[in-house]
Formats: sequence, structure tokens, C-alpha cells
Amino acid sequence: MAVIGIVGGTGKLGAALAGRWAKAGHAVLIGSRSAESAEATAAGLSERFGRPVGAGTNLDVAARADIVVCTVPWAAQADRLGEIREAVRGKIVIDTSVPLVPPRVMRVQLPPEGSAALRAQAVLGDGVRLVSAFHNVAAHTLASDADVACDVLVFSDDKEARAVGVALAKDLGVRGLHGGALANAAAAEALTSILIFLNKTYQVDGAGIVITGTLVEPA
Amino acid sequence: MAVIGIVGGTGKLGAALAGRWAKAGHAVLIGSRSAESAEATAAGLSERFGRPVGAGTNLDVAARADIVVCTVPWAAQADRLGEIREAVRGKIVIDTSVPLVPPRVMRVQLPPEGSAALRAQAVLGDGVRLVSAFHNVAAHTLASDADVACDVLVFSDDKEARAVGVALAKDLGVRGLHGGALANAAAAEALTSILIFLNKTYQVDGAGIVITGTLVEPA
Repeated sequence: MAVIGIVGGTGKLGAALAGRWAKAGHAVLIGSRSAESAEATAAGLSERFGRPVGAGTNLDVAARADIVVCTVPWAAQADRLGEIREAVRGKIVIDTSVPLVPPRVMRVQLPPEGSAALRAQAVLGDGVRLVSAFHNVAAHTLASDADVACDVLVFSDDKEARAVGVALAKDLGVRGLHGGALANAAAAEALTSILIFLNKTYQVDGAGIVITGTLVEPA
Repeated sequence: MAVIGIVGGTGKLGAALAGRWAKAGHAVLIGSRSAESAEATAAGLSERFGRPVGAGTNLDVAARADIVVCTVPWAAQADRLGEIREAVRGKIVIDTSVPLVPPRVMRVQLPPEGSAALRAQAVLGDGVRLVSAFHNVAAHTLASDADVACDVLVFSDDKEARAVGVALAKDLGVRGLHGGALANAAAAEALTSILIFLNKTYQVDGAGIVITGTLVEPA
């Protein structure tokens, strides 16, 4: 079975994804700049879900994993991806970055590249199978045992890699949907600022999105 | 009662909005480059809904209306808005533009300004109360009597004008939601390409989005 390594796995989103994937039976490794922090998070998840969860530095975990999921804050995205660039060559990398620029996180501020996903591509180059996903799920809901009322839109220019992202969404207990090209991640990234605005304006505890209409799974 | 003028009102989206608003009791004017075309569309809507619908050239309608809704294709947006710039000074202008660039309409291609909404602002200047909305509702569903399973996100830097957009969404029979600053329209604009992709990939007849969570109307 493919090993999932989570770069920035001690953060809220990374740990929440790791927990749900571990619960679903995946082999998961928590990465962090500090191996000790990673081990502490992994130990907590292991205890909670009764499943082994590995740990290491970001680079170590990126090297050991088959699928690398990057869940670091936007300000650190380029640096962290740059550090693992060689280690992830040829692998599926799932970037979850959303270009939130404090203090105005309720305002859409896409980067000059067009999206965080396209910036990830610029940093990692063509040698990886880059996917962008998990922009709109609230980390604190994922971290709980609650049902997550939010579809996950998955973007990639590599259709097979995108299908892996869709399957991993399903393993979280949410509906994953093919959202098209990597460039399309701009939509989901921008939507996160809207969801934060909606949470504040309408006193929502983790607004999400659901695609309406009768969807037929492609053959 | 405020008069709604629709620039590009003979198009699919414009006519569909006009019909639903006329049905809800609004005074509506259909605008087009050709007054004859506008009159034909207006006559059809009048007959269908049993309500008077006015008509005129785009400029005529923009001058007569209190609220001006622009529903022209993306390629024509800057030209049409430029033509009515003086006529709409001080008025609420609701732009519905989505930057779809044929033939790759399933690919997000936001303009250099960041969004169609920000381009509209650049063309119209500060003298109007600019709102951006109605990006994600399928025109053919709006044109039918069917329920529309799609929230309408409404964006503006002018909160009162935004509230007018939200109320107009409700008058269509859909949920209108404040989506924040005008710059945030990028999210809904980009999402339209995703919805077109979903329609094709999952054989959906007009995919839409719904915001999940328990929303409390602001006081």
C-alpha cells in the first residue's frame, strides 16, 4: 500500500488529514521541521485511532513516502516545497495551500502565478505529479469525528494523479470530485476566503460547499 | 419601485433574469444593441409572465433604470460598460461577467485585473456602486420554471448595494449570500469554469454550488 507522507503534519489540517487516513487504514507519516514535534503528533494520533503513525523531518518523510501531502501555511509553501524538491521527484505531491494573506484573510488575494497550485508547480518543476486539493474543508471539523459537509475539488494536469486525490478524499469520508486542470485550483483557493467571510457574517461553524445536480461517476 | 435595466438582456442569462424578476413584480427593461431585438425579447417575456416588460437600446435602458444589470459575454464586457459609463453614474451596477475564454472554457483564466469584476471597476471608475453576482446559476435553469439548486454569492465593496444584490437573488427564488469585497468575485467567476467541467465530466445538467452549514442572517 502507498505510504502517505505529510509535510507540515503537525499543523491543524495536516494532523486532521493524517488521523482520518490512518483510521481508514492508510500508512501515514507525519513530517515537521522538528522530528520531535512530528513524533509527538504521530504518537497522539496512534493512540487516538489505534493505528501506527510514523514520523520524521519533512525531508525524511518526503523521501520515504509514495504520496506527499503538503499542508504548510501559505507563507512557508515555497520554502518547504523547495526543501523537498529532489526527494519528491516522480511522486504524487498533493498541495493544499490556500493563499490567505493576514490580516485580510477574508479577501481573495491570489498570487501573481494565478494560484498557490501554480506557484507549487513553479517551485517543484515538471518532475512531480502535482495535485491540488483539500482547500475548503474546515480543519477543526476534519479533526473531529463529525461528518464533513463539504465536497473536495481535486485539480491536476495529471488525470491519474488526480484520481488518487479523489480517492483519498473519499477515504476522509467526504466526496472528492475531479475539478479539472491544475490552474483551476484558483477557484477553490479563492473560495476559502469566501468561506471565512461567510463564517463571520452568518455565524457559521465551518461553512463548506457542496456541488448540486445529479452527478454520474465517469466510467 | 426601482427599475431594473438589463444590458445585454436579449442573451440567455439576461432574459432569464428579466423573466424571473418580472414574475416577482419588478419593473424590468430589456436592453440590447438593437432596440428591435430588445423589444422582441421583452414582448416574449411579457406574454409568458403576464407582466409588462420594457425595452430599448443598452444606453437608453441604462439611462432609464435605477439598477443596471450587465449580462453581456465576457469578450464584450469592457466595450458595453464603456458605452454606458456616463449613464450609470451614481447607480447600482450589477456585473455578471465570467471570464470564460473559448475554446478552453473549462479552464480558469482570470484576467490581469484579477477578475471580471475588477475589470468592470477599472472601466466604470469610482462613480458607480458596483456589485458582482449571478456567476454560477445556469441560465437555462433560470429560464425554466424549475427550482434552481444554486446559491448566489454577491460581492461588492458597497455593503448596501451588495444587500440589494442579495435581495434580487432572493426574488429569483434562490438564496443570495453576501460574499464580501468586490475582489472576492474572483472565486465565483473561477468556479464557473469548474461547474462547466463538472457538467461534462459527471454528465450534470447544470451543476451548481450550495454553501453548507447553519447560516444565521445578520441583523
